[in-house]
Amino acid sequence: MSGDPARRMRWWGWGDDAHDAALPDAAANLLRDELGWTEGPVRRPVALDDVRLPDPRLNDALRSRLVEAVGSDAVRTDRLERVLHSAGKSYPDLVRLRSGDALEAPDAVVYPASHEEVVGVLAACGDEGVAVVPFGGGTSVVGGVDPVRDGFAAAISLDTGQMDRLVSVDHRSLTATLEPGLTGPRAEAWLAARGLTLGHFPQSWEYATIGGFVATRSAGQASTGYGRIDELVLGLRCATPAGDIAARAFPASAAGPALRELVVGSEGVLGVITEATLAVRPAPAECHYEGWSFRSFTEGAEAFRMMEQSDASPDVARLSDEEETRLSMAMASTGSATERAGRAYLRARGHEGGCIAIIGHEGSAEEVARRRSRTREALKRGDGLPLGQRPGRAWLRGRYAGPYLRDALLDRGVMAETLETATSWSHLESLHAQVAAALRDALRTRGTPPLVLCHVSHLYRSGASLYFTFLARQEEGAELDQWRAAKTAAGEAIVAGGGTITHHHAVGRDHSPWMAREVGPLALDVLRAAKERLDPDGIMNPGKLLPTAAGGRPAGTT
Amino acid sequence: MSGDPARRMRWWGWGDDAHDAALPDAAANLLRDELGWTEGPVRRPVALDDVRLPDPRLNDALRSRLVEAVGSDAVRTDRLERVLHSAGKSYPDLVRLRSGDALEAPDAVVYPASHEEVVGVLAACGDEGVAVVPFGGGTSVVGGVDPVRDGFAAAISLDTGQMDRLVSVDHRSLTATLEPGLTGPRAEAWLAARGLTLGHFPQSWEYATIGGFVATRSAGQASTGYGRIDELVLGLRCATPAGDIAARAFPASAAGPALRELVVGSEGVLGVITEATLAVRPAPAECHYEGWSFRSFTEGAEAFRMMEQSDASPDVARLSDEEETRLSMAMASTGSATERAGRAYLRARGHEGGCIAIIGHEGSAEEVARRRSRTREALKRGDGLPLGQRPGRAWLRGRYAGPYLRDALLDRGVMAETLETATSWSHLESLHAQVAAALRDALRTRGTPPLVLCHVSHLYRSGASLYFTFLARQEEGAELDQWRAAKTAAGEAIVAGGGTITHHHAVGRDHSPWMAREVGPLALDVLRAAKERLDPDGIMNPGKLLPTAAGGRPAGTT
Repeated sequence: MSGDPARRMRWWGWGDDAHDAALPDAAANLLRDELGWTEGPVRRPVALDDVRLPDPRLNDALRSRLVEAVGSDAVRTDRLERVLHSAGKSYPDLVRLRSGDALEAPDAVVYPASHEEVVGVLAACGDEGVAVVPFGGGTSVVGGVDPVRDGFAAAISLDTGQMDRLVSVDHRSLTATLEPGLTGPRAEAWLAARGLTLGHFPQSWEYATIGGFVATRSAGQASTGYGRIDELVLGLRCATPAGDIAARAFPASAAGPALRELVVGSEGVLGVITEATLAVRPAPAECHYEGWSFRSFTEGAEAFRMMEQSDASPDVARLSDEEETRLSMAMASTGSATERAGRAYLRARGHEGGCIAIIGHEGSAEEVARRRSRTREALKRGDGLPLGQRPGRAWLRGRYAGPYLRDALLDRGVMAETLETATSWSHLESLHAQVAAALRDALRTRGTPPLVLCHVSHLYRSGASLYFTFLARQEEGAELDQWRAAKTAAGEAIVAGGGTITHHHAVGRDHSPWMAREVGPLALDVLRAAKERLDPDGIMNPGKLLPTAAGGRPAGTT
Repeated sequence: MSGDPARRMRWWGWGDDAHDAALPDAAANLLRDELGWTEGPVRRPVALDDVRLPDPRLNDALRSRLVEAVGSDAVRTDRLERVLHSAGKSYPDLVRLRSGDALEAPDAVVYPASHEEVVGVLAACGDEGVAVVPFGGGTSVVGGVDPVRDGFAAAISLDTGQMDRLVSVDHRSLTATLEPGLTGPRAEAWLAARGLTLGHFPQSWEYATIGGFVATRSAGQASTGYGRIDELVLGLRCATPAGDIAARAFPASAAGPALRELVVGSEGVLGVITEATLAVRPAPAECHYEGWSFRSFTEGAEAFRMMEQSDASPDVARLSDEEETRLSMAMASTGSATERAGRAYLRARGHEGGCIAIIGHEGSAEEVARRRSRTREALKRGDGLPLGQRPGRAWLRGRYAGPYLRDALLDRGVMAETLETATSWSHLESLHAQVAAALRDALRTRGTPPLVLCHVSHLYRSGASLYFTFLARQEEGAELDQWRAAKTAAGEAIVAGGGTITHHHAVGRDHSPWMAREVGPLALDVLRAAKERLDPDGIMNPGKLLPTAAGGRPAGTT
C-alpha cells in the first residue's frame, strides 16, 4: 500500500540506486580547480536504522478513526514510511536526512484512495487535533512537505499515491480530468495511450505528481510552449476541513474573482486537491531540440525577448549565461576531435566565451517545421548561431539528471543548490547580476567561494525567469548555516531587484519570509482569512506558505 | 468636474444624441412580420425634471469629510449627476429610467483624482457608515453600479473619471500602467501616441473604463487574439477600506495563490482599483476583416474548433447562427444588385440559409498575411466559403452600434436584450439549443414570441462563448416581469447545460442568484471572508456579486 513502487525514492536523496550518478572526472577536476575542493573520503548517509525519529504520537482514537476512513493497510507507521515522509528533497532536507535527522517525521502516513477517503481523513484529524501534510511525490525543494507540528498533538502525512487514475478525457475540448497522485510518467502514459500529452515536465517530473504541480503552481521545462500548470488548470476539486470547493472547467468566465486561482498554488494549506481538469494537447509526433550560440548573455536575452514578443517562441527556450556555458562545456569535455572542431567553429565566429541556448519544438511534423522556421529567423536576426541537434539531444538526455548529480556532490562534500525568479525584460539583466553577486559575496565571505551559474528558463511577453545554480565546498559542521547565508542573500537580492521570490519552486517553509514582502501584509491577511474559513482549526500543512510566528523550526536549523 | 465630457451618456439611454440611431425601414418591417409588432406612437423617456429621485441623505458631517478628501468641486449632488449615477445601462435600468424611476440614485457623486483621494473617500464613508459604489463608465448591463443602500444611511457613487492618466509605459516589457477612469478611446489614444495598443474592445468601449474592464473581468471583441482582460492584467493596486492591496507585475510567479485574481472581477465589492499594469502590443499597422460563410452553425463551430486547436485563430472570430445570419441579412437588405448577386453566390454553393462568420486579423502587414494564410487554410478545411472584406468592413462600422439601436427599439416598444455564456466544445451545441429554446418558451408563454439570435464570440482551446440577443414586443406595464421571466429561463438553462452564467458581462445584481450555484456555497463563503477582511463594515458596493438576503430590491422590480 504505497502506490506505484516506481515513485519511491531513496529516503536520503533523489531517485533510486539504479540511477546513481557518478561524479564525472571532468567535474571532479573542475571542482578541484574552481572551488578549492580536495578529494576526501566519500561521506555516505547514515544507515536507515540509525536515523533519529520522534516517538510516534498516534493515539488509539486517531488510529481507529484513520483505519475507519482508509482501511488498516493504508495507515502506515513503519520506520521507512515515516522517514520517507519526514521531508522533501531540498538541500537542507538532504543534509539533515543524510546526517540521520528525521526528527520531524510524521506520526503516521495515510494513503486515501478517493476523494471521500480524503474527506474522512480530514474529519478524523480535525476532531483529534492532528496536523495533516498533503504529500504527492515528496519532491519539494522549499520545505513544502515537512510535517511541522505547530502545536498540534501529532502530524500525519496524507500521501495521494493511491489516487492515481485518469478520471476522464474530453477529446473534443482537449481536456483531461486526473487524480492528484498520478506521477508525471504515469499521467503521460495514460494520456499517450489516448494520443494526448499534458506537456508538463519539471525536472522533478519522474516523481512529482499532478496534485503537486497544481498545489505549487509549477512550471515545466516546456512551459514556454505548453503553458505553466496555472494556465493548464481549467477546473479542480479540493477537499477542505470545511467542505468541498469545486471549480468547474469553463474555458473562461466573468463570474467574479477566479476562485480556482486561490487553490492553485495553495500548497496544501487550504485542503487536498483531489481532482484536476487540465488542458491537454495531441501527443507530439516530433520533438526537435537544437543548440544555438550567442556572443553574450545580453545578446541572447535580447534575441529571446524579440522572439517571444513576435510570437515566434519554441516550446523549450533556455539560455545559459557565460558561466553556466563555460562550466557545462568543461563538465562535458572529452577532448575529442569533434569537441575541438566545435570550439574552433565558435572561436572563428567570435562566439568563444559566449552563451549556449537550447531550443525545442514539439508537435506534428508540419507544426515543428513551420514554427522552427520562424524561431530560426528570429534567433538569426538576434545574431544567434545554430549549433545543430547534438546539444539539444544532450540536453534531453540530461534533463532530469540534476538532482542525481546533487547526491553525488553531497557524497564528496560539495553543496549544490538552485533557486529561481522571474522579472520583466527591463529588469532581467540587472537582476541576473545582482543575485549572482549576492550569492558570490555571501559564500566568499564564509571562505567558500562558489560557482554561480544561471539560465533563462521560461519566456513570457513581459519578461522571463532566471534559474540559478550554485556550487561551493560544504562547511563541514555548518552546512545549514552556510546554506542559509547564501539563500538569504539571494532572497534579499531578488526582492530588491524586482523579482518574484519563486517562479516555480513555490513558497513552502523556506520562502515564507519573503512571501509577506512580495504580496504585502493585507493580501497575506486575505489569504489567512480564506484559510480560517476553509481550515478553521489550522490543521492543513501548518507552517507553510503563510509566515507564522510558530512555524516550527526555521528552515535550515538542525 | 465630471472627467472627460465625451464619457457622459444621456441619462436615459446609450451614447449621446448626436449618435441617435434611427430604426431602419427593413428592421421595422421585419419586427412587424416576425414579432407581431405594430407601429404605435413613439414612447419617449420622461423629462429629466420629472424623474423621481430620493431626497438626498448626505449629512453635513459626511459632506465636509468628502469635501476634505476631494475638494468641493468634486462632490456633486445635482439632479443630472445623481440620475446619471443611479443605474447602469441594462434593459431593466433603461426601462426604469425612461419611466422616470431613479429611486436608487446616490446621495452624492464623488470624483477623487488620485489613489490617496480614494483612500480619503473610503475612510470618510467607513466612519460615517455610507455605502460606496465604484463607477467607471457606468456601462454595466447586470446592475453592477446601482447604489443599493443595503441598510446604510446613505450611498455615494465614487466616479473614477478624474483618474484618467497613463502612469507609465515599459516599451521593452510591453506593459503600461493606467489609471482606472481612462475610457477605452482615451486609453487607446494615449497608447497609440506611443505606438502601442491594449487591443481591448468590448461593445461598451466608447464609454467603459480600464477600472471597469478589470473589475468585471471583461472580454473585448478582439480578445480571441489579444486575450481577455484577466490575461492582460499583470499588476494592480486596489484601495480597500482596510488598506491597499498591490499585486506586482511579474510575468509569472509560484509565490502562492494568485491574489491578483481575487481583485480582477471583484466588481467593487472589495475596494477601488486605482491602477492597473496591463500587457500591451505594438499598434497594428494593418487591420483586415473579412466575411466567411458556413452551411450550418454546426459546421461553422466545428471549423472554429479545429482552427483554434491548431493555433490558427484570428484576433476576432465570430460565427452567427442561422437565425442571427438571417435577421442581420434582412436588416441590412437594400435589394441592390450586389446583394442579389451575393445571395445567388451563396445559393449556388449550397450556403443558402447558412451562417456568416467574421474573421479579423490585426498586426504588421507581415503578421496579418502570415496569420491570415493559416486561418484561411483552417476555415477552408472546415468547408468555409470566403466572402471577402465587405462583410468585415460592415461589421467594423457597426461594432459599437448595438446599444444605440436598443434605444431606438425601446422607443418603439420592443425589448432588446443580450446575454452570454461559455462552455466546452463538447457542450457548445446542446447549450446553444437549450438556451435559445428556454428564451423562446418563456416569451412565447407570455404571448410575446421572440426572435432569438446567437453567435460564437470568443474562442478558447477548450471551448467558446455564446452570445445571445433576443427581441420581443414589450408587455406594456409588465416590461420588467417579462424581462425577468426570460432572463430567469436563460439563466436556468445555462447552469443546467454546463455553461458559466457570464462570459464577460460580470455578475452585478442580476446574475448573483446563479453565482452561488456556479461556484458553490463554500467558495462563496471564502469570497465573503475576503470581503469581511478588506471591507469589515461592508460599505463597498453592497448587493453586488455576492448574493445576500438584504441585497436591495431584486433586479427587475419597480
